[in-house]
Amino acid sequence: MCADGGTHEIAPRSGVAFTLGRGDRLTVIDPRGEQVADLLAFNRHDVDEVISSGRTLDYASRIYLTTGDPLYSNRSNVLLRIVEDTVGRHDFLLTPCSADTFRIIYGDAHPHRGCFGNLAAALAPYGIAPDRIPVAFNCFMNVPVDGTTGSLSVQPPLSRAGDFITFQAETDLVIGLTACSALQSNNGSFKPIHYRVTPAATVT
Amino acid sequence: MCADGGTHEIAPRSGVAFTLGRGDRLTVIDPRGEQVADLLAFNRHDVDEVISSGRTLDYASRIYLTTGDPLYSNRSNVLLRIVEDTVGRHDFLLTPCSADTFRIIYGDAHPHRGCFGNLAAALAPYGIAPDRIPVAFNCFMNVPVDGTTGSLSVQPPLSRAGDFITFQAETDLVIGLTACSALQSNNGSFKPIHYRVTPAATVT
Repeated sequence: MCADGGTHEIAPRSGVAFTLGRGDRLTVIDPRGEQVADLLAFNRHDVDEVISSGRTLDYASRIYLTTGDPLYSNRSNVLLRIVEDTVGRHDFLLTPCSADTFRIIYGDAHPHRGCFGNLAAALAPYGIAPDRIPVAFNCFMNVPVDGTTGSLSVQPPLSRAGDFITFQAETDLVIGLTACSALQSNNGSFKPIHYRVTPAATVT
Repeated sequence: MCADGGTHEIAPRSGVAFTLGRGDRLTVIDPRGEQVADLLAFNRHDVDEVISSGRTLDYASRIYLTTGDPLYSNRSNVLLRIVEDTVGRHDFLLTPCSADTFRIIYGDAHPHRGCFGNLAAALAPYGIAPDRIPVAFNCFMNVPVDGTTGSLSVQPPLSRAGDFITFQAETDLVIGLTACSALQSNNGSFKPIHYRVTPAATVT
């Protein structure tokens, strides 16, 4: 579904998967503000290679990533690089919310399948099994950490309507992307996410 | 190799794998102090189920884990529970050091295979491929995070000679365990790690 020309809309509490070619750019837009988008990236030619929070944070020596930072794979190759970012606060500590998350944290008796279930369904046609879903790069998710106690909390995103983050694909990729399904992550409401792909040939 | 009765020694810069039965306890001991041990745990009956930093930190709402804290799997089951801990500072953010780590962070031309290579070799007989190695629970690793800037740093472990952490297996497991190979993580020297398994039947 396109909201306009080349901009696609991900409906609230849903997810999509698509491919990127090397050099393509992906812009993830928060159209209304305070909405998280969980992002996964796999090597399109070998989906056992996937983004790795552990490698990326180790090499960056930082838990908050922004413009200029590469996202490394489990094989220490750069899969994506952040090339523009109007927010500067994203999370790379937590796994996608799931039915188990809602059961364990919120006590839901009949939980939604969450970003995990949405990503698993969207990625299945690419041969990616649910067990292969790692910690996601959670665009706009605001998870401050108390450096003394180590406690973390999920706070309202700092993104305002129209804020965005742009990634460049450093190799051919399969992308999974959601409009996040967890109330707490999105300041209490479920909103859409927009995204736009700029082909490598037209990147200026 | 046993250092004494039931205590096994992991030589500096090496790693091992072994199984635990449900209810068994694993004690990881730092015999000389300031030495890290990377720990992995897989469901012995289905090794696609593995400890998950993202699930665990989300449910704990803390990045520093200690006595009483469960370590969850990618399927949100508890694989291990910390039942005793004389240190209180461990890392669950970073992946095992590898040849790539030493190349990228230290600029080594002929890097050691690191904990990643040691774990991959030790886990291969259990049918666990290198790509299946996630963020490890890094016993005694001291990685403070600056809550304001998000910067993290690898500091000398807080463990002193004889300090230990004990885990209880909540299901049948394959364990991978190392004496960590990264200079910075171990305050500049490579030392052994000891471990002891207490069978469920003898846990008091």
